[in-house]
Amino acid sequence: MEDFNPTERTAMKRGAARGHYDRETVYAILDEGLVAHIGFEDNGQVFVLPRSYGRMGDRIILHGSHQARLTKIARRGGSICVTVTLLDGLVVSKSIMHHSMNYRSVVVLGVPEEITDEAQKADALRTLVEHVIPGRFPEGRAPDANEIKATAVLALPLTEASAKIRTGPPAEPESDRALDFWSGVIPLRLTPLRPEPSGDVLADAPLPDSVGHYRRPAPPRRR
Amino acid sequence: MEDFNPTERTAMKRGAARGHYDRETVYAILDEGLVAHIGFEDNGQVFVLPRSYGRMGDRIILHGSHQARLTKIARRGGSICVTVTLLDGLVVSKSIMHHSMNYRSVVVLGVPEEITDEAQKADALRTLVEHVIPGRFPEGRAPDANEIKATAVLALPLTEASAKIRTGPPAEPESDRALDFWSGVIPLRLTPLRPEPSGDVLADAPLPDSVGHYRRPAPPRRR
Repeated sequence: MEDFNPTERTAMKRGAARGHYDRETVYAILDEGLVAHIGFEDNGQVFVLPRSYGRMGDRIILHGSHQARLTKIARRGGSICVTVTLLDGLVVSKSIMHHSMNYRSVVVLGVPEEITDEAQKADALRTLVEHVIPGRFPEGRAPDANEIKATAVLALPLTEASAKIRTGPPAEPESDRALDFWSGVIPLRLTPLRPEPSGDVLADAPLPDSVGHYRRPAPPRRR
Repeated sequence: MEDFNPTERTAMKRGAARGHYDRETVYAILDEGLVAHIGFEDNGQVFVLPRSYGRMGDRIILHGSHQARLTKIARRGGSICVTVTLLDGLVVSKSIMHHSMNYRSVVVLGVPEEITDEAQKADALRTLVEHVIPGRFPEGRAPDANEIKATAVLALPLTEASAKIRTGPPAEPESDRALDFWSGVIPLRLTPLRPEPSGDVLADAPLPDSVGHYRRPAPPRRR
């Protein structure tokens, strides 16, 4: 599939050097994120809500109840924005006004479609679970027909999207760079701690592989 | 100041037990977050963009260039949504369909106002820097008049806001709780790594206190 063409709505005007429109970059960020911020308009007000998500080929998968606002928006053909942001570090400059953050973000615009086909819906639900904890789907009690029926699944085609990336040390004027202060980056990582069993775990139930081996990817090294 | 009254737009219909409307809860989440997702409408399309932010009393502070889309939206009195999400853990249930995430999020709705008063603007810029790295502002080269002039600063009054919190182990039906599988939580923490100096640091420039002591708060313990 072709890369994204920057549109009037996704082309970066300021900080154009930070803009990326190739699918590899966009998909790598989407695949690493855990939470998407979904924007939609309802009754003249914009709302932004955090949601888990997944990627199934060239579509972003979302889910919710049949009564959820987002589901209703999708059913009436409303446009949404899905934004995923990975925070990689705090950028510390010698001059106060040049502090920044290192991050990788993706913005996707479009109109989500509801997935109603049963087999596709089952695939999409698997995608959602596997996106968050790879390998998790086959370990638990599988979804039954009623559970699948009770869930609305939306797919947003990845047709209008862009990535924005800031990386590396601070950028400040030469006169500030010469100051005798420290400057640099505090890297930030989302770190999993030791899994905490619930009170329902029977004595002999082993930690599942997907949980025991759960790791977060390290951000790519860039100049 | 009084707590928030749930409005038609902020009251939670589903998962009402997760909704919180007291200022203490809302402000604690805002004070811990580093990135806000700002939603606004432009030309019939909703956009959601990640931005750093700060809180100055009962206002959220945002900044950008004078030409930025968000600045223009504010100048024409457009309504925005500011959402801050802290991801605390991955919730692993015995049944696949009851997987979830532990998180704390805040949604703020309203119309931002531009801060043009010079003293207030300087205070707001200090707030933005201190929000991200407490103690950082006095350590670097202070902003000058031109830098302050070149930056647009917006304030969103905290009048219509709500928090949503999920915490604790999975919630699944009794029949699933009895299964001989593991269930529990993988806690997630945003962890600072060792600060990385830029190439501009002179030999004798010490690591600033705010950077050397930079810590992320642990999420509150709740049942």
